[in-house]
Amino acid sequence: MKARVHVMLKSGVLDPQGEAVRHALGQLGFDGVEGVRQGKVIELDLAETDAEQARATVTEMCEKLLANTVIESYSVEIA
Amino acid sequence: MKARVHVMLKSGVLDPQGEAVRHALGQLGFDGVEGVRQGKVIELDLAETDAEQARATVTEMCEKLLANTVIESYSVEIA
Repeated sequence: MKARVHVMLKSGVLDPQGEAVRHALGQLGFDGVEGVRQGKVIELDLAETDAEQARATVTEMCEKLLANTVIESYSVEIA
Repeated sequence: MKARVHVMLKSGVLDPQGEAVRHALGQLGFDGVEGVRQGKVIELDLAETDAEQARATVTEMCEKLLANTVIESYSVEIA
């Protein structure tokens, strides 16, 4: 079973990577870019076959390792 | 208009970040993790209002800046 986790900085937390990308896009001539946020995506290949159990496990992985929940939010997709 | 870009290492390209996550998950007691790939997600807030035009622009951004197409693949979602 495949799972995909998105980890983004919470809104309000300064995102220097996103700002750098926005600046670089402007310099390359891309106008009309009003905001950029950069985050991580983690794709997991799990032996688990039950979707609900997989979601619970991946949520626990996020809490313990994948996200810093003080400044980052995460979302889990099971496919 | 919002766009989301996923940038992942192409399959076959070694992914040390993903390997590090897989190893750390194993050490935390999460069994049954068969593979981990880590990539980037970039969320763009665009002034453009036409979806097709936005997709074309973001694809060009990927080719020029956001992805290293030698080793990375990207996908664009317009929302």
